[in-house]
Amino acid sequence: GKIPTEFSGLRGQESAGIVTSDGESSQAFKVHKGMGLINHVFNADSLKKLYVSNLGIGHTRYSTSGISELQNCQPFVVETLHGKIAVAHNGELTNAVRLRRKLMRHGVGLSTSSDSELITQLLAFTPPLENDDTADWVARIKNLMNETPTSYSLLIMHKDIIYAVRDPYGNRPLCIGRLIPVGDMNGKGKDNSETEGWVVSSESCSFLSIGAEYYREVLPGEIVKISRYDVQTLDVVPRPEGDPSAFCIFEYVYFARPDSIFEGQMVYSVRRRCGQQLAIEAPVEADLVSTVPESATPAALGYAQKCGLPYVEVLCKNRYVGRTFIQPNMRLRQLGVAKKFGVLSDNFKGKRVVIIDDSIVRGNTISPIIKLLRESGAKEVHIRVASPPIRFPCYMGINIPTKEELIANRPEFHDLANYIGADSVVYLSVEGLVSSVQESIKARQENENNLKTQKSRVGKIGHCTACLTGEYPVELEW
Amino acid sequence: GKIPTEFSGLRGQESAGIVTSDGESSQAFKVHKGMGLINHVFNADSLKKLYVSNLGIGHTRYSTSGISELQNCQPFVVETLHGKIAVAHNGELTNAVRLRRKLMRHGVGLSTSSDSELITQLLAFTPPLENDDTADWVARIKNLMNETPTSYSLLIMHKDIIYAVRDPYGNRPLCIGRLIPVGDMNGKGKDNSETEGWVVSSESCSFLSIGAEYYREVLPGEIVKISRYDVQTLDVVPRPEGDPSAFCIFEYVYFARPDSIFEGQMVYSVRRRCGQQLAIEAPVEADLVSTVPESATPAALGYAQKCGLPYVEVLCKNRYVGRTFIQPNMRLRQLGVAKKFGVLSDNFKGKRVVIIDDSIVRGNTISPIIKLLRESGAKEVHIRVASPPIRFPCYMGINIPTKEELIANRPEFHDLANYIGADSVVYLSVEGLVSSVQESIKARQENENNLKTQKSRVGKIGHCTACLTGEYPVELEW
Amino acid sequence: GKIPTEFSGLRGQESAGIVTSDGESSQAFKVHKGMGLINHVFNADSLKKLYVSNLGIGHTRYSTSGISELQNCQPFVVETLHGKIAVAHNGELTNAVRLRRKLMRHGVGLSTSSDSELITQLLAFTPPLENDDTADWVARIKNLMNETPTSYSLLIMHKDIIYAVRDPYGNRPLCIGRLIPVGDMNGKGKDNSETEGWVVSSESCSFLSIGAEYYREVLPGEIVKISRYDVQTLDVVPRPEGDPSAFCIFEYVYFARPDSIFEGQMVYSVRRRCGQQLAIEAPVEADLVSTVPESATPAALGYAQKCGLPYVEVLCKNRYVGRTFIQPNMRLRQLGVAKKFGVLSDNFKGKRVVIIDDSIVRGNTISPIIKLLRESGAKEVHIRVASPPIRFPCYMGINIPTKEELIANRPEFHDLANYIGADSVVYLSVEGLVSSVQESIKARQENENNLKTQKSRVGKIGHCTACLTGEYPVELEW
Amino acid sequence: GKIPTEFSGLRGQESAGIVTSDGESSQAFKVHKGMGLINHVFNADSLKKLYVSNLGIGHTRYSTSGISELQNCQPFVVETLHGKIAVAHNGELTNAVRLRRKLMRHGVGLSTSSDSELITQLLAFTPPLENDDTADWVARIKNLMNETPTSYSLLIMHKDIIYAVRDPYGNRPLCIGRLIPVGDMNGKGKDNSETEGWVVSSESCSFLSIGAEYYREVLPGEIVKISRYDVQTLDVVPRPEGDPSAFCIFEYVYFARPDSIFEGQMVYSVRRRCGQQLAIEAPVEADLVSTVPESATPAALGYAQKCGLPYVEVLCKNRYVGRTFIQPNMRLRQLGVAKKFGVLSDNFKGKRVVIIDDSIVRGNTISPIIKLLRESGAKEVHIRVASPPIRFPCYMGINIPTKEELIANRPEFHDLANYIGADSVVYLSVEGLVSSVQESIKARQENENNLKTQKSRVGKIGHCTACLTGEYPVELEW
Repeated sequence: GKIPTEFSGLRGQESAGIVTSDGESSQAFKVHKGMGLINHVFNADSLKKLYVSNLGIGHTRYSTSGISELQNCQPFVVETLHGKIAVAHNGELTNAVRLRRKLMRHGVGLSTSSDSELITQLLAFTPPLENDDTADWVARIKNLMNETPTSYSLLIMHKDIIYAVRDPYGNRPLCIGRLIPVGDMNGKGKDNSETEGWVVSSESCSFLSIGAEYYREVLPGEIVKISRYDVQTLDVVPRPEGDPSAFCIFEYVYFARPDSIFEGQMVYSVRRRCGQQLAIEAPVEADLVSTVPESATPAALGYAQKCGLPYVEVLCKNRYVGRTFIQPNMRLRQLGVAKKFGVLSDNFKGKRVVIIDDSIVRGNTISPIIKLLRESGAKEVHIRVASPPIRFPCYMGINIPTKEELIANRPEFHDLANYIGADSVVYLSVEGLVSSVQESIKARQENENNLKTQKSRVGKIGHCTACLTGEYPVELEW
Repeated sequence: GKIPTEFSGLRGQESAGIVTSDGESSQAFKVHKGMGLINHVFNADSLKKLYVSNLGIGHTRYSTSGISELQNCQPFVVETLHGKIAVAHNGELTNAVRLRRKLMRHGVGLSTSSDSELITQLLAFTPPLENDDTADWVARIKNLMNETPTSYSLLIMHKDIIYAVRDPYGNRPLCIGRLIPVGDMNGKGKDNSETEGWVVSSESCSFLSIGAEYYREVLPGEIVKISRYDVQTLDVVPRPEGDPSAFCIFEYVYFARPDSIFEGQMVYSVRRRCGQQLAIEAPVEADLVSTVPESATPAALGYAQKCGLPYVEVLCKNRYVGRTFIQPNMRLRQLGVAKKFGVLSDNFKGKRVVIIDDSIVRGNTISPIIKLLRESGAKEVHIRVASPPIRFPCYMGINIPTKEELIANRPEFHDLANYIGADSVVYLSVEGLVSSVQESIKARQENENNLKTQKSRVGKIGHCTACLTGEYPVELEW
Repeated sequence: GKIPTEFSGLRGQESAGIVTSDGESSQAFKVHKGMGLINHVFNADSLKKLYVSNLGIGHTRYSTSGISELQNCQPFVVETLHGKIAVAHNGELTNAVRLRRKLMRHGVGLSTSSDSELITQLLAFTPPLENDDTADWVARIKNLMNETPTSYSLLIMHKDIIYAVRDPYGNRPLCIGRLIPVGDMNGKGKDNSETEGWVVSSESCSFLSIGAEYYREVLPGEIVKISRYDVQTLDVVPRPEGDPSAFCIFEYVYFARPDSIFEGQMVYSVRRRCGQQLAIEAPVEADLVSTVPESATPAALGYAQKCGLPYVEVLCKNRYVGRTFIQPNMRLRQLGVAKKFGVLSDNFKGKRVVIIDDSIVRGNTISPIIKLLRESGAKEVHIRVASPPIRFPCYMGINIPTKEELIANRPEFHDLANYIGADSVVYLSVEGLVSSVQESIKARQENENNLKTQKSRVGKIGHCTACLTGEYPVELEW
Repeated sequence: GKIPTEFSGLRGQESAGIVTSDGESSQAFKVHKGMGLINHVFNADSLKKLYVSNLGIGHTRYSTSGISELQNCQPFVVETLHGKIAVAHNGELTNAVRLRRKLMRHGVGLSTSSDSELITQLLAFTPPLENDDTADWVARIKNLMNETPTSYSLLIMHKDIIYAVRDPYGNRPLCIGRLIPVGDMNGKGKDNSETEGWVVSSESCSFLSIGAEYYREVLPGEIVKISRYDVQTLDVVPRPEGDPSAFCIFEYVYFARPDSIFEGQMVYSVRRRCGQQLAIEAPVEADLVSTVPESATPAALGYAQKCGLPYVEVLCKNRYVGRTFIQPNMRLRQLGVAKKFGVLSDNFKGKRVVIIDDSIVRGNTISPIIKLLRESGAKEVHIRVASPPIRFPCYMGINIPTKEELIANRPEFHDLANYIGADSVVYLSVEGLVSSVQESIKARQENENNLKTQKSRVGKIGHCTACLTGEYPVELEW
């Protein structure tokens, strides 16, 4: 008697959109999209309008390719001979330019610059391969996956089915959650509870807030069919022989929320291990370890524990900093960072301080913080960065500053401590990061091998470190 | 040395959009679109962003087919193998359903329900016919015109060219204006002034407000090429043998602004002639002639002059009527019309009044006005309507109430005077309307014939009276 | 069994406010005020909040003295020992400066620059004169009227009573309407209908839109007490011996809505008589008479009828003119007036045109209109102004441009026709205006005298023509 | 040659206002006020309008007495015989009702329910005592302080002077900062830098963000005169013999920002000492100590350090939680707290957890967090609260829930651990809190006594613990 509910979404802050289907007529999609944060795009009225059923896909856009304009908002909906489809996409196609030309050569006009429209029209354009309508869409999806190797996590909605797809390299995340009855959430025995429905998301952190529990990841190359009552693997498209998977390592370092789970491990735990590894690679004689709130806190706690130094707070966030309207004189312009933090000077006056940061990208944030700490009485300020320097562009969905803006590519990098005003500064090594990420995955795999379980369908495990090393998982096309 | 300027627009109030081109690269279109009135959609920032050149097309949408959603906003832009094109469309295709299926059968996904996207994809889809790029677009346009007879007025922008197109039946208006130097506007000799550029619009009334003067209409079936320095006829696609043109008569009666010029005559003059004709067809013994402000004033002045009765104002508009928030009791609900008008009772107390209205569509506006006049002292109230009753739907771009809502299709129509509370009510005849519209056109044509000018390219003159008579200019397809 | 309703309001567009009372506790006023038009200030929520009873006063501010800031919004509410009072004021005190000093000398701090707060604190400050609470407020109102002769129309609310007060000179208007049952409005016999309640307003035109009918004016100097069931004159404070009344003549000429009634006559009728008088004073040989829409239309119809010339429309309003965002070049700046009007050129090409305007204050509106008409083919353009030139400031509530801005005080006035580009220009004389205003009042008075009715309580009739003649009804204090 | 700048502000989030003075004319105040957060009330335009000088006072309102309406916005400005004054007030007068009646009895109408207007009118009303204008305002301020003992921190601006005043009990905070030249901020020797101006604020934390440094507190009872070039004590009004000072202890526990300094100590340090004291009073056998982010973190770190248990994060904040529009079913309503936090389950699975909270007021926040932790695997959950239970209302400026809402006054309190689902729950004792607050103050005082410095002007040190104990520092009047 339970009513299943499926609802899926990808993340970002530039635009947001939701498409729902009544699950019967393929014409009856409801669409609401807009620029800005979810809270600005949706209100009670637009949500009521969308609430026609328990089936829908959503998208919040984090701009990479494609200008930030309304027509690039996802999900993208088109009408085809076989009804409407709606597509939400996370990632960036490495061979988009070639695919666009191919479609236009067939006389299809493309109305946006987004890969989402490109994918949608490719799905529409593919000639129908079989008579059975369902099989048809899977064939179209496999056809698409043959045309482009990475990077994409996709949700494709047609009538009463959502297809969840991850590219063969598994570059972008995608995972499935199980909606559990609220009564059961209250602790009355979860195990034998009925499933209320399914949700799909880039990050598992979103499940808790809607009363779902983590079910599993979509595997690299996997096509999953989600219907009213079940979740079913339709196929796993393999990578070229020998190619390892290439999940984005930047998700662990910076992008994902700490409570998300990727590849069986919590992001927070990876970050704490990075801090521990950093303590091994770059110890320092000091009185206390602290952090720039809040993202580097797990690494700082890991570093402090490994070193045996106390973890102490040196800055507090100023919650009410907003946009600043006017800058009547030089004074306020020069006070930038001081407006964002309060200084807990009694905690570190006369002490030697180690500050753990999660990354130094341009170098212009950490520098005024160091000055602030020194002016408030810090005796020494050492910087330890819980990730390696970023040096290369990402063409697979992460918006990284230009090569010229990256501090690691500039002359100042050779004397970075001096440039940012620190007593010392050391980054985590690439090897240290990769081992912090892969340590527990490998342990688990070995474990499984010992148990002689069947060979994993995931193949050889690897991670995309292109932004750190310049080694891209597939050849780039222009 | 003058810099030419081309700018073009179609009318409506539901959404608005502008696309500009830098005139060189076909990729460099700037687009801004949004729901609502122009003043809500555009502001100084969006206009500055658009101001890249002197070339652009705009559109304000008056919804007919297509739901009123953002993705239906025009102009519609797509990228093709030969660069981007932008299309603005006024009208409604009578065979849209068939054309949509045809495109989808070729694997093109359609992302909106608007005829504008349909036309744009049809232009993109057509296989290139010749090598010369310019000729190519004209061939595509002619191809489109062969696929669909009516109704459309189009602006198509590609690189530094705007094509202005009117369907062979000339159902929707489209005219060209000439921007004249401002110095010359100040009266220092217009005749030998240089042209500063060209503008294209549905209605000529818009020219004055931007300092342009009326140049000429685009003819039915004509393809006009507008470039930096000239306006050039590329072709006039003919109608099937014997078919008269079919310009929408509703534009004269109701839709267009009184200062617009169609077919060589001012709309105001046609409306005044309708009033005169009505005085001939339906005179009445009364003391004064008046109007429901403001659209029926020309007809009322024509009626009054023809009858020899004084023209007197009986109502004044309440300028500050806005949306009403709350209706705490029946009282305010019942006062609807009284909130929109003030009553000039001293002007008509004890008198027999003739009220000229431009149309009675549903009958629920005139009825409370009549009651108001009677309560304020009118001795008799006679209604004369300066157009025939509307009875049929329009499938060519005008949003007409459903058949059931139209008063002329309802039983009350048989005793209309009684139903609306008037002493008498008479509509203008269809013949009276057509002759009021065609009288001066025919006089001019005869005149031209007498002057032995070459045969007009317009062919046989007619008007679409489908909403009054049910006779559509082309066969309707579903 | 009927529930009486009292609701009262004064006019203006700069700010708006409403105060309601539950009619029992003097503490329970509900207040909502804000800057801008009524529609911006109020919405369904704020109105629901206010809807505690059938008793309230409102105010829309038209700024004269006092900067346009939120704290100057009326009605002004203060708590006194005897409960809260709310005050709405139309007008401007001629001795405000002296009264402010007087209050401050008593230690009252004044938080705004508005006369409304001044009046409210004067009412609060007055020492209680009698024990009876009701009598008390009347004594305080009379005390206030002794302190300041003009100009003020006031609504004062306390518990379940509203006092409506007009200054002894009757400079600002104030009139009472009777709410009639809606059933009766539908024509089923008004005469014996019960009264549903009372409303008070600056202008009677507002009554129709809320289902009330005009009852009577508040007389100059009169204090009217309005309670749940009746309207009662408490006193009529006289003017100094021999002083005539001084109702603002500018209300007839320009300020009031044409369907309002002052001193027993409709404003529209006065304006038409001004046009007739102008035709007598300043006839012109021409082909047609027209107007700048819409305020001068009654005068134009009066002029046309008196002259025997046809009344013809030459301009139509462009309804969609909004704020203009950007002025990319000189062109649009120079087109100002052309954006507001469409030109009905076929109606006047080659003709001699008389344009009736209601007033020429600065001269910069009529000038481009004349140019527009000439460029569109007018052979001659004669301007006739249906009021005398404004030359002096108003200190009694009308916001008139500074002396330097008034065209009548500038050198160009001596050759005005040339300056504005007209063939001739003539203003109505002061005597002509005064006789047009007073003609029917005097006729009625004589009539009443003949009927030997008791002497009117209004005293000698006069009108304030200070802005035209510099003769102020009372001595001005600084 | 430096230009001094004075700018002062009090805190709150309900409304905001700024008044600036050009420092010369007492008429030339610029005022901008509005409802909502500072960022909504002010923009570049309003700030530019205000920027007439270097002198001004501001206020952000945190509502206690007075309904939250626009007219209650501070600063309050009135014109008096001696020019305008502007007043900003933090606190709540314990005898406001009596003072309001007193003013009204003198014939002053009060337009708001705010104490700020009351104080302003009391200052205006006081009869001038001396001829010298400056002396005059000080006499008026002392007069006010004689009328009302507490609680108020005031800024009073008149012409080019700001008076900073704290009530004799020192109930509300107020401190002075020194603007230092930006060049000097960059570290080039602060000590001999010139002063650029003075700022006054409730909390010292605001100084850093505008480039000022903490100078000193305004003492209980002190009247400080701040002019262009110096800060000068005019008087210190004493308390009744024997009464200790009564600074609000809630500021330390909850209200103030952790980086603010009161009575010579950083709030963060007091909170950490509370955590340490709590570890002494209520230790528990467990595996880790954590916190509900973020306000209880200092107490948690103090508790962990004292116990020797590791400090671990168990929850992460969900930064993008916004208003929720719609609650289509019970599910989302029941998920409330889960939407605000992410769970770092790997950090505490199978562990015994101590959660430090800063206060439990109603009990409905901590309860779902405990459930969340248990469901995510916590073996035990012990709650330790770093402050005593709140039981009594505050009449001196802090908005505390009604007695009935306070968990400590409800029957559930007797079995609180069970009610909120914890394994145990213990609050800090009142004595423990007071000693954590006073420990370092007393140490410093003794130190000063040993150094035989002159007796402090502050008198006997005490703190207001009324909300915890019901012992109010002064008798309450109604």
